[in-house]
Amino acid sequence: MIGKSIKIEGTGVYLPEAKSSETIEKMLGIPLGWSEKYSGVKNRHHVTFETNGFMGARAAEQALQSADLTLRDIDMLISAGSSYDYPLPNQASVIKHELRGASFDFPAIDIDSTCLSFISGLEMAASILDGQTYKRILLVSTEVASKGLDPSNWETATLFGDGAAATIIAYDPFEESLVVKSQQKTYSEGVYHTIIEGGGIANYFNNTGINSKDIFFRMQGKNLLRLAKKKLPIFIKDFFDDLPIKIEDVDVIIPHQASSTGLAVFKKMYPFNESQVIDTLAMNGNCIAASIPLTLHHVITQKKLKRGQICLLIGTSAGFSIGGLLFRY
Amino acid sequence: MIGKSIKIEGTGVYLPEAKSSETIEKMLGIPLGWSEKYSGVKNRHHVTFETNGFMGARAAEQALQSADLTLRDIDMLISAGSSYDYPLPNQASVIKHELRGASFDFPAIDIDSTCLSFISGLEMAASILDGQTYKRILLVSTEVASKGLDPSNWETATLFGDGAAATIIAYDPFEESLVVKSQQKTYSEGVYHTIIEGGGIANYFNNTGINSKDIFFRMQGKNLLRLAKKKLPIFIKDFFDDLPIKIEDVDVIIPHQASSTGLAVFKKMYPFNESQVIDTLAMNGNCIAASIPLTLHHVITQKKLKRGQICLLIGTSAGFSIGGLLFRY
Repeated sequence: MIGKSIKIEGTGVYLPEAKSSETIEKMLGIPLGWSEKYSGVKNRHHVTFETNGFMGARAAEQALQSADLTLRDIDMLISAGSSYDYPLPNQASVIKHELRGASFDFPAIDIDSTCLSFISGLEMAASILDGQTYKRILLVSTEVASKGLDPSNWETATLFGDGAAATIIAYDPFEESLVVKSQQKTYSEGVYHTIIEGGGIANYFNNTGINSKDIFFRMQGKNLLRLAKKKLPIFIKDFFDDLPIKIEDVDVIIPHQASSTGLAVFKKMYPFNESQVIDTLAMNGNCIAASIPLTLHHVITQKKLKRGQICLLIGTSAGFSIGGLLFRY
Repeated sequence: MIGKSIKIEGTGVYLPEAKSSETIEKMLGIPLGWSEKYSGVKNRHHVTFETNGFMGARAAEQALQSADLTLRDIDMLISAGSSYDYPLPNQASVIKHELRGASFDFPAIDIDSTCLSFISGLEMAASILDGQTYKRILLVSTEVASKGLDPSNWETATLFGDGAAATIIAYDPFEESLVVKSQQKTYSEGVYHTIIEGGGIANYFNNTGINSKDIFFRMQGKNLLRLAKKKLPIFIKDFFDDLPIKIEDVDVIIPHQASSTGLAVFKKMYPFNESQVIDTLAMNGNCIAASIPLTLHHVITQKKLKRGQICLLIGTSAGFSIGGLLFRY
């Protein structure tokens, strides 16, 4: 999409209990220091009692508070994420039910493009906001990665974290803020580079038991990196081709916090300033679709992104997809 | 949303092996004739080798053929449904990968509002179509219900079927066809009236085994019907309040094929003609989100819906939601 006047009015987050790399390393028999060295993650958060619905609702309440709004002002709830509390009903309905306060009947809809779900959700929200039926959308990305991690796979066991981030997206009649451009491409040759094999229709769990390998997230790290290295420069060239600016002119760049290697490769590709590309991997790990909005909340609350500045959200996801969204905050 | 010029250019379906009520009744020890009498279902289709991805891709290919288009003409694939082949990657990526022919890099995104996913998907597709970045969207609803049915629950075991339907939605510069209005409401008091408890974050499966009750779809039929009876007339009154027509003036009404009781209650509410409300429950069962587009394909191919006529898609879904979309075909 090109040129849609919408404004981010507020953001909020919820992070469960912190889990240091040392704690995980001791628990799983990994050499001390391995995580920081190889995954780049010093700290992440893992749920104890929390569900996606609980975390998403708390993040949403904080976002509403930051925008000085209530649920009465919301016309739609979009849950933009990959993990879910139940196979049915949809995650957005569960988040809505968990929200405190009076009951409103705005619709609750899920959007899933795995790690890029926040970008897809923001594009869909921007498209549907018309200032009439839809004036404000509550966009929530809440993810629990920790339950599907294979303890014998050090890379994923130390890389992923849980958390939720919520954003209030409003139709902007003053045209101060806007989505400049949004684009996503799905390259099917990488469709199964990241997968959870069991629990869906293809390998339905039944009461005769399950293979432990089927419940775990699996990632072909090297194949993913190879595909990303090949496709990302083409994607970015194409994305900026019809725009009056180049990627290195963007004020703030928020990449999906996929992995330290992925972030390093991306930073090397262009002549960025040191502070231009935001890196929250060390403190939160890879939180699937919540990574980008958690980082967005960080730059807004830390005043690293100011009104009028240009911000690029960009990342890769299972499927395999690359997506980018450029907006004026 | 109100007033968006989009056109349904083609539709296609895929239905797996037919399974008569007699077959199911004999298999599960249900008295012969019970299904037709109580569920209203004479026949439904259950997968043998098929996945959601396989069925969705075949339906998509038929839709492309019916519109005399190829994948080259598609700018986005939306998978609008509730069931999925894998917890990760998203269903749209799997469908895209299963599509025959050359590889294109259009994005593949999931939308899930359970049984209303097709309506939500059509509204999102209509919103994002701009005639520039997005000229045509391939909207696919593919569902496998059969694997999650409790054989000891006669109501659900006889009610649900599998199947896929695909629709090509195009930006319409000639403004001949349009979405007149689309609306959805989520009433959180019914959030857990329909649920699959296990397999998500709330009750994650682990390798120590699973409770069989957790893998099955469960439905509080009476509570659902009570809530629908209470909310549906208010929803419809509100939906048509600002429109120049009444529900009984709509040419073709396609309700979600939720249950025979649900369909009967709906038909009694308004002075419909006998042929106005389309009922495909007896031949296909309840196919979750695929029910509405399967029925849409039926009315279009049977010439029960002609260009220029007004059609209403309406239904209820887990969450609990009611949604409606009125369009000129």
